[in-house]
Amino acid sequence: MSTQELTKQILKKKSFLCVGLDVDLERIPTYLLSEEDPIFSFNKAIIDATHQFCVAYKPNIAFYEACGLEGWQALDKTIKYLNHHYPEIYTIADAKRGDIGNTSRMYAKTFLKDLGFDSVTVAPYMGKDSVEPFLQFDNKQAILLALTSNAGAFDFQTLDTEGEQLYKKVLKTSQTWENADRLMYVIGATKAEFLTEVRKIVPENFLLIPGVGAQGGKLEDVCKYGMTKDVGLLVNSSRKIIYASESSNFAEIAGAKAEILQKQMAEELAQL
Amino acid sequence: MSTQELTKQILKKKSFLCVGLDVDLERIPTYLLSEEDPIFSFNKAIIDATHQFCVAYKPNIAFYEACGLEGWQALDKTIKYLNHHYPEIYTIADAKRGDIGNTSRMYAKTFLKDLGFDSVTVAPYMGKDSVEPFLQFDNKQAILLALTSNAGAFDFQTLDTEGEQLYKKVLKTSQTWENADRLMYVIGATKAEFLTEVRKIVPENFLLIPGVGAQGGKLEDVCKYGMTKDVGLLVNSSRKIIYASESSNFAEIAGAKAEILQKQMAEELAQL
Repeated sequence: MSTQELTKQILKKKSFLCVGLDVDLERIPTYLLSEEDPIFSFNKAIIDATHQFCVAYKPNIAFYEACGLEGWQALDKTIKYLNHHYPEIYTIADAKRGDIGNTSRMYAKTFLKDLGFDSVTVAPYMGKDSVEPFLQFDNKQAILLALTSNAGAFDFQTLDTEGEQLYKKVLKTSQTWENADRLMYVIGATKAEFLTEVRKIVPENFLLIPGVGAQGGKLEDVCKYGMTKDVGLLVNSSRKIIYASESSNFAEIAGAKAEILQKQMAEELAQL
Repeated sequence: MSTQELTKQILKKKSFLCVGLDVDLERIPTYLLSEEDPIFSFNKAIIDATHQFCVAYKPNIAFYEACGLEGWQALDKTIKYLNHHYPEIYTIADAKRGDIGNTSRMYAKTFLKDLGFDSVTVAPYMGKDSVEPFLQFDNKQAILLALTSNAGAFDFQTLDTEGEQLYKKVLKTSQTWENADRLMYVIGATKAEFLTEVRKIVPENFLLIPGVGAQGGKLEDVCKYGMTKDVGLLVNSSRKIIYASESSNFAEIAGAKAEILQKQMAEELAQL
């Protein structure tokens, strides 16, 4: 999906919500465990109940990998289900991959071509040739980690690096890479005060904000400091939506939680 | 495996060679493609022919992930084959993972517990809580990217960060983390002149040197500047060994290539 199309969907649905599909077998309603594919059953129910309130889904690959072959099968079924039934939805493989060039090419092919995601999250530490292979696909994007939402973000990302914080160096340098217009960036919402700085360097690229919800972070601040004239934001919520209830109507409750966020987002978008 | 046991194996076999199992279906002998599991057949042949000359194997997970379910099955069979038939061999999942704490925990469980690798490579960008979950397993290690062997290494890793290059900051900071004695580090052999600097900060930790062979780098330099009294080195070679020949005796030729490196390593070890 192009970023133009993504913006169009955001304006149409009045939502820039991304729902994180971090499916943990220990947290889903226990009655699902007797189904043939509990992970996919859970995802399908969540997707059917929340899709009208969000524009994107983001399965974190760690949760699927942890389930072995069954996990990969469930991931494959989930992305196929999304692409077939909800082609208007933007999809993110939250994989945080990155390796030397010829190896990153394998990862890029896996997620963007074979599995068919619109985008994949990528780690910047190994530099240009580790990221560019993810930028070789028309209407697909790579979402580069810049400033993450965890405590460890302050170990390296905010260190002064030749006159500016490392995450700013990552933003600036990556903008010089081939097909940089296909880059989006992960910016932790728990640090909304950083968003002004981010927007000075990347005024137009989409930002994926992972930290609204269980990880904290205020939606108003994110919009105030991060929104562009074309929105330029995807705000993720995972656990607060998908694990809002363990009862048999968990999907309905997830839908209601997503709708609350969607309504807040509609208010923010009305001010554009 | 403990690092003490790894050192014992190195001294016994007179080798600190790690063979990279980066299996690409487009590069293996074509006659293998008609077998039920070409990837595992290739790995088994390579392992049987090279195990006496090396102490470790390192499948790069990207190559397996790119083959979907069949790739994961082949990876599972490969690690099980190694753990069952060659328990004296050290195993590395070259996955370069790293995420927020609870997600890194999933990755750590997948590679170190479920699949049963001795170690996994980890990216440092997200800091302490993204790495420590990989250090919670007795006699298992995490191998942190410090200075990689690709061109992109110079984009961020060597930038001056509060008075020293970023990779040195990664080395120093990570040494303060819980169970830091379970850390090894990836140091690109194409930069052997950096090894002196590395050893000032981590005088004892094992270093995984990925760049000898196809990526360049001299064994003599690596040993001169990187070896400790307990060796402290694993030198990897992938393509130059496993793709030395495409003929039916590819495994035998891989064995011969591995033996050449082993003999060079024996000479270096003799000077300890």
